[in-house]
Amino acid sequence: MRHYYRLTDLAIEQILDLLDRAEHHRHNPRSETLARKEFVLIFLNPSLRTRASFEVAIRHMGGGVTTLGADAIWPLEAQPGTVMDQQQTEHVFEAALVLSRYYDGIGVRSLARGQSREEDLQDQVLASFMERAQVPVFNMESAMYHPCQALGDLLTVRDLLGGFKGRRLTITWAYHPRALPMSVPNSILLAACKTGMDVTLAHPPEFALTTGMMELAHAEVERSGGALRVCHDRCEALKDTEIVYAKAWGGLGRYDDPAREAEERDRYRSWIVDKDAMSRTRRAFFMHCLPVRRNVVVTDEVLESAASKVIHQAENRLHVQKAILEWLYAWNER
Amino acid sequence: MRHYYRLTDLAIEQILDLLDRAEHHRHNPRSETLARKEFVLIFLNPSLRTRASFEVAIRHMGGGVTTLGADAIWPLEAQPGTVMDQQQTEHVFEAALVLSRYYDGIGVRSLARGQSREEDLQDQVLASFMERAQVPVFNMESAMYHPCQALGDLLTVRDLLGGFKGRRLTITWAYHPRALPMSVPNSILLAACKTGMDVTLAHPPEFALTTGMMELAHAEVERSGGALRVCHDRCEALKDTEIVYAKAWGGLGRYDDPAREAEERDRYRSWIVDKDAMSRTRRAFFMHCLPVRRNVVVTDEVLESAASKVIHQAENRLHVQKAILEWLYAWNER
Amino acid sequence: MRHYYRLTDLAIEQILDLLDRAEHHRHNPRSETLARKEFVLIFLNPSLRTRASFEVAIRHMGGGVTTLGADAIWPLEAQPGTVMDQQQTEHVFEAALVLSRYYDGIGVRSLARGQSREEDLQDQVLASFMERAQVPVFNMESAMYHPCQALGDLLTVRDLLGGFKGRRLTITWAYHPRALPMSVPNSILLAACKTGMDVTLAHPPEFALTTGMMELAHAEVERSGGALRVCHDRCEALKDTEIVYAKAWGGLGRYDDPAREAEERDRYRSWIVDKDAMSRTRRAFFMHCLPVRRNVVVTDEVLESAASKVIHQAENRLHVQKAILEWLYAWNER
Repeated sequence: MRHYYRLTDLAIEQILDLLDRAEHHRHNPRSETLARKEFVLIFLNPSLRTRASFEVAIRHMGGGVTTLGADAIWPLEAQPGTVMDQQQTEHVFEAALVLSRYYDGIGVRSLARGQSREEDLQDQVLASFMERAQVPVFNMESAMYHPCQALGDLLTVRDLLGGFKGRRLTITWAYHPRALPMSVPNSILLAACKTGMDVTLAHPPEFALTTGMMELAHAEVERSGGALRVCHDRCEALKDTEIVYAKAWGGLGRYDDPAREAEERDRYRSWIVDKDAMSRTRRAFFMHCLPVRRNVVVTDEVLESAASKVIHQAENRLHVQKAILEWLYAWNER
Repeated sequence: MRHYYRLTDLAIEQILDLLDRAEHHRHNPRSETLARKEFVLIFLNPSLRTRASFEVAIRHMGGGVTTLGADAIWPLEAQPGTVMDQQQTEHVFEAALVLSRYYDGIGVRSLARGQSREEDLQDQVLASFMERAQVPVFNMESAMYHPCQALGDLLTVRDLLGGFKGRRLTITWAYHPRALPMSVPNSILLAACKTGMDVTLAHPPEFALTTGMMELAHAEVERSGGALRVCHDRCEALKDTEIVYAKAWGGLGRYDDPAREAEERDRYRSWIVDKDAMSRTRRAFFMHCLPVRRNVVVTDEVLESAASKVIHQAENRLHVQKAILEWLYAWNER
Repeated sequence: MRHYYRLTDLAIEQILDLLDRAEHHRHNPRSETLARKEFVLIFLNPSLRTRASFEVAIRHMGGGVTTLGADAIWPLEAQPGTVMDQQQTEHVFEAALVLSRYYDGIGVRSLARGQSREEDLQDQVLASFMERAQVPVFNMESAMYHPCQALGDLLTVRDLLGGFKGRRLTITWAYHPRALPMSVPNSILLAACKTGMDVTLAHPPEFALTTGMMELAHAEVERSGGALRVCHDRCEALKDTEIVYAKAWGGLGRYDDPAREAEERDRYRSWIVDKDAMSRTRRAFFMHCLPVRRNVVVTDEVLESAASKVIHQAENRLHVQKAILEWLYAWNER
């Protein structure tokens, strides 16, 4: 049995296969691949694209789907060994086992809460689901990873640039009024490094990703023959790039001193992607996972320009998720 | 491409066609008209009839449906040009474009918030969805209109009276503990005027509809050869009418001085539809869009009498919405 | 037309028939029994198993399903004759009648609120739905009963012990930080008595079920030739039993003096099902309806032991609910 937890668990050949299958699904939206299969999608946080594209993907492929929001179900405990005398009334262990009796696959979204660094690093909700489920679990964005976004982003990059090796992508931190999770920057960083792109990660010094994540990224670069540099000067980072991938995230300082992290973040309100920023690139495309705060993360002007590929990027979620669902049930055939 | 925003955007012939199609669907509930089509229904406010009847209509016609409540998705900004540094994290512009890539049609409910008159008049959520969506958008009740209710109501009137021309309908304001939106009275008023009915609009002087709406209504009367009078004496308004259409709404004063509006509203608690009120009519039928507060807007006695057609009226929502969905995708065939 | 409100409304022969049909569905998950039928599931409270298993059951049998949470719809009033000037904006009477026009069956969950003993005993939400609905209503857990759980539990008992007559089942109260409803203990108690089991009901003296429920249980025992004893000594109650059925519930004192009830409850924190408790049984199986608070109601050790059948028990919900749905529409054929 397979789970889909993070993109980098897959070999590069598998990833390229998935992209080819996604391309197939783009042109053949309907199939009976999931006929007589039932899926449950658990969203412990809001979602527009992920929920909509998974529901449609499953129905397009002949399956049935139940979507459960956090308020629909009992509050879930994920930590093993707990004395459950607090708010949580059901353990993920039971939920995973029970749902495995009703469904053929379980999708889970559980974002970082940003309160305990250890909790977020452990990615405990996903880990507990995968530990106990008797059917495939797929990650619809966890505290650490958003692997459906990452695969969709690779498809978009390939659509735009024709390939990965040596192509220049700049992941640029953006200002945001709240300290957002790191799952998306983690995921696009690893995906781009794994496919051998020439990656620049641009952020103010206080907004580094975790050391562990950077080590994983460098290991991917070593294997792929790509490149990775970190740059605190955004102008420099944008120079000659082919894709500007903007994303806001909170600093690691949030766990220890949230007030100070917020203050530091406020200093970088100028890290918005505007026309001036785009003019420093080599006529780059603009990408963002959405939702995006207009005129905070990116200006209306850039977002609505021909260079902006955010809607195409969102559409690609549908195609790659069909490939992922297919792959989850094809393991015994290969 | 067509949207369905308000009933009066349609010619009278189209409306009568839709009623005939609804009649067809009443007797032929199942079809494959929407086979291989996917729909998303966005409810930014609660719903019983609209949600249930649209979900069933779509499945009856072979389509697939995703329903998204306000809490399931990211808080939506609708105003163009905003600096999105407040609670809203996603703009309707992106939502509309993205959902157009996954779905074949988008239904939206977004009621009047009652805080800014300008905001409610602009009907900005619906307007922004229609501005950007690449697939048909249908109005499941907006700040200004409830066109599915209006079409269902016309079907009910035709079921009850056999036609429209010169038939007497009284729309009577009713007391309610909260200042409700005007979408339903606006919509039945325009629909009845458009079909040439002899319409009486009864309300206390402080509870007029907007001047703009009254002008639209009079213009419809002029075209249709119907009649419209406004009456502040409820007894007079009910005299000899054939249908009593009750609905509570808040006064326009709510925007400037909500406390005073509430006080004014309280003075008209006697505007409940009871047996005495019904006895002044010509054995009239009772209609209401539901939900209705029993013994506040209408007495149990009237609501449960043979004259009450509210359940039939609710059922008709199902039939007319099938006609609307069909019409949205038939534009290129006519 | 049939409703499914509580298990004991059925004759024992019908119950055994339903178990046989459930066994059939276990081995034949897919059918077209509900083809062209539409269902609405109304959850006024959270749910994992009930919602998931009903949605899957309906789709497995070819039907369509809409699920409505409390926040999706208008707040419901259930009491007849009320002047609805409070928070509730829609009466169950209208909701039941309207939904009967769209759907072929209505499932309702409405748990005890624990605020008024009279209100909970009346089970008014279910009663009002059944009074007005024109299609079958099925109880997905009410203030008083959880008949789908009860039928699933009987299937589990039969799976484990091969039959009912004279087999020993101990229903043991368990500590819980909140005063939970009595629907589950009521339902398993009546089900076990009805099938002629040798039942021990163990609870601290302050945590008796209602007198009315105990009278119903004794009447079932009389008919079935089973046995029922109440025992306040848990060790004694567990001795030689074959199944330990644990469930937390609040004392009846909650209605009059909630603080005192909480204090009394706190005294019995030792009523957790642990290895020591299980060792007093005749190698008994452990059952619980879930969700369960680990290490409060039952220890990890017992819950994860081979004796624990809670996941099997949850799976059986799916099979028996298919039998129930089938039965609701088969009344005119038998």
